[in-house]
Amino acid sequence: MKDISIGLVGAGTVGGGVVKVLSKRLDFFRNELGLPLRLARIADKQISLFKELPVGDAVCTASADDILNDDSIQIVIELVGGKGFAFDLIMEALKRKKHVITANKALIAERGPEIFECAEKNGVSVYFEASVGGGMPVIKAIREGLIGNNVFSVKTIINGTCNYILTKMTVEGLPFADVLKEAQARGYAEADPTLDIEGGDSGHKAAILASLISDGYVPFEKVYREGITSISAEDIRFASELGYTIKLLGVIKKNNSDDQLDVRVHPAMLHDDHILASVSNVYNAVLLEGDSVGQILLYGRGAGELPTASAVVSDIIDVARNISASSPVRVPMGYYSKSKEISIKQIDTITSRYYLRFTVVDQPGVLASITSELGKHGISIASVMQKEGYEDSSVPVIILTHLASEKGIKDSVAGIEKMSFIKDKTQIIRIES
Amino acid sequence: MKDISIGLVGAGTVGGGVVKVLSKRLDFFRNELGLPLRLARIADKQISLFKELPVGDAVCTASADDILNDDSIQIVIELVGGKGFAFDLIMEALKRKKHVITANKALIAERGPEIFECAEKNGVSVYFEASVGGGMPVIKAIREGLIGNNVFSVKTIINGTCNYILTKMTVEGLPFADVLKEAQARGYAEADPTLDIEGGDSGHKAAILASLISDGYVPFEKVYREGITSISAEDIRFASELGYTIKLLGVIKKNNSDDQLDVRVHPAMLHDDHILASVSNVYNAVLLEGDSVGQILLYGRGAGELPTASAVVSDIIDVARNISASSPVRVPMGYYSKSKEISIKQIDTITSRYYLRFTVVDQPGVLASITSELGKHGISIASVMQKEGYEDSSVPVIILTHLASEKGIKDSVAGIEKMSFIKDKTQIIRIES
Repeated sequence: MKDISIGLVGAGTVGGGVVKVLSKRLDFFRNELGLPLRLARIADKQISLFKELPVGDAVCTASADDILNDDSIQIVIELVGGKGFAFDLIMEALKRKKHVITANKALIAERGPEIFECAEKNGVSVYFEASVGGGMPVIKAIREGLIGNNVFSVKTIINGTCNYILTKMTVEGLPFADVLKEAQARGYAEADPTLDIEGGDSGHKAAILASLISDGYVPFEKVYREGITSISAEDIRFASELGYTIKLLGVIKKNNSDDQLDVRVHPAMLHDDHILASVSNVYNAVLLEGDSVGQILLYGRGAGELPTASAVVSDIIDVARNISASSPVRVPMGYYSKSKEISIKQIDTITSRYYLRFTVVDQPGVLASITSELGKHGISIASVMQKEGYEDSSVPVIILTHLASEKGIKDSVAGIEKMSFIKDKTQIIRIES
Repeated sequence: MKDISIGLVGAGTVGGGVVKVLSKRLDFFRNELGLPLRLARIADKQISLFKELPVGDAVCTASADDILNDDSIQIVIELVGGKGFAFDLIMEALKRKKHVITANKALIAERGPEIFECAEKNGVSVYFEASVGGGMPVIKAIREGLIGNNVFSVKTIINGTCNYILTKMTVEGLPFADVLKEAQARGYAEADPTLDIEGGDSGHKAAILASLISDGYVPFEKVYREGITSISAEDIRFASELGYTIKLLGVIKKNNSDDQLDVRVHPAMLHDDHILASVSNVYNAVLLEGDSVGQILLYGRGAGELPTASAVVSDIIDVARNISASSPVRVPMGYYSKSKEISIKQIDTITSRYYLRFTVVDQPGVLASITSELGKHGISIASVMQKEGYEDSSVPVIILTHLASEKGIKDSVAGIEKMSFIKDKTQIIRIES
């Protein structure tokens, strides 16, 4: 059989990982799987990166065009990142009938429909296992392993940076800003951490997972996103006293009552015995629920050089098997199209349980005023915690509600915040079960 | 495209589940995946089972021959169980160039080489996702999702019956026999529970997983197996006091030091913060460790009508995609062959940490004699627990060791058991980390 030639664009951390993982397994792929893969070219503008890689000079080039123009290359791996050059590269590769493998969650989430349409038109495919959950084969699980199911719920810890920060805050009682600095020093957070800590990265991944389970297209910009920057060490301590852990959670729920998909990313309180509550540090986890299979959890490292490379290499093998079987579109993505856009539930229309932390002046009648306002909006209280011993002029009042409407919560909090005893913005955290 | 016709043999619990799951998803498979599946025939000697199924009479038959003889049927699903008729059925189907899907772990583990050889010779394939871990796509994860890895370690809770029994014993402090009876009454244990509680079922699954990660053939009969019948409520209580949980564990480890694979099934103590320690009741979990991906956990229901059917249906789709792409042996199984038998480590040559419970007469010098004998065999003690307040003539002495050789442990326990103060057989439980 003729070699299957691969062109890799992007020789950074993940690109380097792919070269390492692939080199180790080439003989196995050739001899045991019958797939004669060849890493034909590696392109990166930053040619100094090549020095770190165990490949010959002839393989390396500063120009991705050398890969696009090489007709013998059948698979292009895009590990450049970003949404400009990477998008053009992917589209150009597809137009030249090359299969594409990418780890670019932003691109799949934001421009997936154009990409998949172009792939279909050219009879090639796009694989993106590494875009969600690093080395966990979660996209394969949804598209293949659980294909007999209507997957109606996903709850996921999908951003290692945020999970590391929240774990550190929980274990060491430190404030957000201090832990972020430490995470940056250790390389667990970027110099500009916005995309992680504001929920954008988790939102990209949630949009992809939501599209996959709903056989339609969930636009990233319609996914409600709330980051972890407002979570205080105090919230984490109170949660812990109440038997809860705070995680940045991606939540996707199909509702039977309406056709709208509930997709959102926000900090959530999970009871300590919830299986996701024990997912700590940089680990990720995806809890899927299907109508046949029940609950399935995948857990693993969601990022990093080698785990992400592991996912890219599994895509390479899938594509190589497709090529050797002449079945380029084995897993059709036709549904990931603007014409199949899924209607998303507005955040104000969801129902949830809530944790509310009011900051109030310690004076008689405060609790009565708060609870009365909540009652007016039909919000039923599950528990109240008010602490002695605050020497400040203000004290926290914590209320956990039963199931309530988001709108009712927001309206009543707005009402309460007009009262004179309120000293600060109220913290609202959704409780997931 | 021509219909892809399926023949199902075995209309029991899982067979019925497959009919239900398949019926619900047929339109989706046809319209979205382009796979026109048709459940052409269902065979079962016990024709009364057909009444429960949502299929027409014309589909049902008492004779599997009607499926074998039907040239239009391309996929045969074997859900009969057992090792006699089921084996003959599978071999006959393969010889007639039909693809086979089975949930039969005993057959794959014990006669896999013959089955896979026959499939290869006839240019068809055998899929068996449902044989391990019910609805968890663990076989797909190893063969496809983690194909970029050398998976060098597997630790798994893979038998729901045993996990249910041990969980109940732990939570309620009840003895094994009482919990077994209750599990039988609830349908979580068979009338004859031997295969589950003696470790045979877990052994079958461990042999399959071991073969898959080692790209060779691990014969079932060489897998060391120890069941849970000797685990007492006392062991579980002592473990708990020491911060450990007892689970029936499948352990597979590739050793760098020699070429032998360590494969075994036995009760094991796991520290309470081990991720597998919190896998309770009928849930299963597989903790895989690969050289690229690091730790990956899959968790879900390992048995039951619909979870198992979910796995069978994912196999159906894989086979149907192979058929429609004319790539029948997409995932080659040539290594699962007697000529590629993997050498298995003898249990006496392993090293582990151990929990030892001696039953002794409460008299001076006992602990000195025990520890001295252990010391003679080079066994280093990590902790000792001896309890007051036993009114019996005998009291338990618990010792946790550091890493020790299995042979050293067995030799020293044999030596200690010759001493006059020993009143009962010593309990030995391996500690896994």
